[in-house]
Amino acid sequence: MMSRITCPQLSEKITSAEAAAAEITLGDRVAMSGFTGSGYPKEVPGAVAVRAREAHAAGQDFAIELWTGASTAPELDGVLAEAGAVSKRLPFQSDPTMRRSINSGRTEYVDTHLSHSAQQAWFGFYGNLEVAVVEVAAILPGGLLVPGSSVGNSKTWLDLADRVILEVNSWHPRAYEGFHDVYYGTRRPPERLPIQLLEPMQRIGDPYLRVDPSKVVAVVETNSPDRNLPFKPVDEDSAAIAGHLVDFLRHEIGAGRLPAHLLPLQSGVGNVANAVMADLAASEFEGLTAYTEVIQDGMLDLLDSGKLTSVSATAFSLSAERAADFNERIESYKGRILLRTQEMSNHPEAIRRLGIIAINGMVEADIYGNVNSTHVMGSSIINGIGGSGDFARNAYLNFFVSNSLAKGGAISSIVPFASHIDHTEHDTQILVTEQGLADLRGLSPQARARRIIDSCAHPDYRDRLRDYLDRAVSANPDGQHTPHLLAEALSWHGRYQETGTMRA
Amino acid sequence: MMSRITCPQLSEKITSAEAAAAEITLGDRVAMSGFTGSGYPKEVPGAVAVRAREAHAAGQDFAIELWTGASTAPELDGVLAEAGAVSKRLPFQSDPTMRRSINSGRTEYVDTHLSHSAQQAWFGFYGNLEVAVVEVAAILPGGLLVPGSSVGNSKTWLDLADRVILEVNSWHPRAYEGFHDVYYGTRRPPERLPIQLLEPMQRIGDPYLRVDPSKVVAVVETNSPDRNLPFKPVDEDSAAIAGHLVDFLRHEIGAGRLPAHLLPLQSGVGNVANAVMADLAASEFEGLTAYTEVIQDGMLDLLDSGKLTSVSATAFSLSAERAADFNERIESYKGRILLRTQEMSNHPEAIRRLGIIAINGMVEADIYGNVNSTHVMGSSIINGIGGSGDFARNAYLNFFVSNSLAKGGAISSIVPFASHIDHTEHDTQILVTEQGLADLRGLSPQARARRIIDSCAHPDYRDRLRDYLDRAVSANPDGQHTPHLLAEALSWHGRYQETGTMRA
Repeated sequence: MMSRITCPQLSEKITSAEAAAAEITLGDRVAMSGFTGSGYPKEVPGAVAVRAREAHAAGQDFAIELWTGASTAPELDGVLAEAGAVSKRLPFQSDPTMRRSINSGRTEYVDTHLSHSAQQAWFGFYGNLEVAVVEVAAILPGGLLVPGSSVGNSKTWLDLADRVILEVNSWHPRAYEGFHDVYYGTRRPPERLPIQLLEPMQRIGDPYLRVDPSKVVAVVETNSPDRNLPFKPVDEDSAAIAGHLVDFLRHEIGAGRLPAHLLPLQSGVGNVANAVMADLAASEFEGLTAYTEVIQDGMLDLLDSGKLTSVSATAFSLSAERAADFNERIESYKGRILLRTQEMSNHPEAIRRLGIIAINGMVEADIYGNVNSTHVMGSSIINGIGGSGDFARNAYLNFFVSNSLAKGGAISSIVPFASHIDHTEHDTQILVTEQGLADLRGLSPQARARRIIDSCAHPDYRDRLRDYLDRAVSANPDGQHTPHLLAEALSWHGRYQETGTMRA
Repeated sequence: MMSRITCPQLSEKITSAEAAAAEITLGDRVAMSGFTGSGYPKEVPGAVAVRAREAHAAGQDFAIELWTGASTAPELDGVLAEAGAVSKRLPFQSDPTMRRSINSGRTEYVDTHLSHSAQQAWFGFYGNLEVAVVEVAAILPGGLLVPGSSVGNSKTWLDLADRVILEVNSWHPRAYEGFHDVYYGTRRPPERLPIQLLEPMQRIGDPYLRVDPSKVVAVVETNSPDRNLPFKPVDEDSAAIAGHLVDFLRHEIGAGRLPAHLLPLQSGVGNVANAVMADLAASEFEGLTAYTEVIQDGMLDLLDSGKLTSVSATAFSLSAERAADFNERIESYKGRILLRTQEMSNHPEAIRRLGIIAINGMVEADIYGNVNSTHVMGSSIINGIGGSGDFARNAYLNFFVSNSLAKGGAISSIVPFASHIDHTEHDTQILVTEQGLADLRGLSPQARARRIIDSCAHPDYRDRLRDYLDRAVSANPDGQHTPHLLAEALSWHGRYQETGTMRA
């Protein structure tokens, strides 16, 4: 069996997770690899959590700032949040324990566009980075690193950190070599150059991450799977949303506004994304491509179906079964999948040039098409904005999708005024619920409102939304652009908080 | 005197504004040149307005859709709105009569990112374009056009329109030739290429607009000045805002996060922008550059001072005196000023690469840093988002500036919840009022709120903002990320609507 560590200088640094964790001290800014539950370090975070618990038991402070690519897993966000070891978190998370830590005020959270995180760290906007903890599939001579199932911000963390801890996880196939494209052409203004990327699968970087071996303070060997959440079968509502969306793509081809092979697809994580992929797999479409953040089960299925020729992303997010299957058949995917740094997968320059079709979930939209992607009832964070803003703003077409109802009908996802706004009316183009699709391009706010209510709102709430709009129109003779009743605008959320339902 | 029209084929099309206006019919989509009151057609719009009035007097419908670069002037937006001749308007306006027409519901308004307007029109998202009316300084053989004081969307309007009307305005110096860079490398996805722009003054296009002479149905000769609003002397509050902002730039240089010559400047239109330019002109800075939308008096002064070496923009917006002076001394500015299409001046790819320092005004910000740039009390539009989103999202640093008070203190520009959101918490970095500057980079929402209230809010409103935040924190034990009291969040605006003041 081939050794995973063939760099003599770094072989000498092999140690335990506990010894590695001793390199991390109170107040450090610690940046870890990991994106949508893949490619995150599996053991050092737990060892840091043990240190934190011991310190706290002894009456001492112990907390770090935690930076990642995006969301990780219970072995990282979960254990560190549980141990009360994270004072500040960025740029994205989706872990239940970390979410509680943020919403209870124990952890400060800086919810950042994913394309902004690496560059802003490099610009020095977040302070000095003391430690990077990066999981890889192999270490080659000279400090070349073969990433595993995600790239995320690892390139930047390795570049910036004073000290580096590597986890070499032999669960990742050694054959990951050749699946990555790490762009080393980044510069800070005013020295920046055009990114010469012309099509989704073009290689513009190196197949390896690089680390200065003299900065590496510890190498930890692991053999542990990624998070690998169970795949949920496509439900009826998700299938309906996907149906509306794919029909609309056909309509746009017919109108001459999309080529027959579409444009590169991006889809956020979740059930609807998988449903869209399933719909496309069963469709007449051919020769599709994807330029996205995350490869889920549905996208691998679409690739297997032959409808999708290739996919560029920054990470996988697979079920356990699909991950095991992928790891077994990995060689068959080589040349059809490329994992990039998240500053390239989400780069405005690339997204706008390639003309992406962007599909992202939402929590709620208001009648004018302002979208909330992050908060429940204005105050509590769910996950974060992630890459949805990078993609929506720069896409050729953007879709925001949601069921029209939540909590068994107690919540309408179409509301008079969004309780938090992550994507403004200037950015949102097409909203889709299981009820239908609202194409908002080129419409004024009032026309948008009529279309959203008619096409997307659940019938149980439609009349009340129309009533709100009608009364707002009447009450604002000099405010017909975006008529609102400010005293009532957030009352649907207030009613839910007081009575448990938005229903009258 | 050199003739302004040396294209034989187009000389034959010279006619009156009235005859030209007859080419525009009910329901046409009509795209006109013009950006911040410069380079807009001066006579044809008025002749269209006369037609509209005559039709209306005869009991007939007459309205058009009106597209432009950005804001125009009374002779365009004003007369057409006054005549009730505009059914839909995009992508930006700032005319008092047009604003009333929108807010009274006579005109639908599609408030669009200025970098999106040309491409989305080309993609077909707004429908077929029947007529373009474009003002130029001269017509050369073969349909080459010398633009005047703005470029805006003229390139796209000339490309897309079925029929073209040209106004040749001899008020613009003939010496404008050589001041423009019209990028003809645009393509639609999936054929797009990198924009090979590496520094603000680089020429990547042609010095001329192009028109297919066979599409030109009329040429109208005019001699009429641009809007040229009076220059307002810098007031005390604007000077204070500029002072905080320029001091902060010094601080960032000291911290190693900005080079000594800064990075290219962008500044929105207005008094604060002029104040910042005045502060820089009196400062120790040297070798500055600008990559912006609009050149105001203050920026010309800065150029004259020698502190600013050059400026790329898409339009001028000068006082009458400064315009007259510029027109007289235009040759002395050649090589130091370049006017581009607005899709290039505002292009995310260029803005992110060059690393712009973006300075834009705001109407209000909420305590978490969500910014309203467009609406009064949620319902009425003021102007529009313009390029503020293009610049803020992609800038190296972005500033949003405002006085802390409006309406003699009856309105606080820092509020619990913004009544409209154009720039979200994910995008806004630095807020400045005459009270001080809040650097929000890398802060969680609660930390942002404390800093905004302490640094930017007027002392008259600070305690009540703190009280709102404190009570929101107490009321949301499980919503500590962005604590709000939804029943109260918009009550400050409601109080203003009911009592004429936000004061308690």
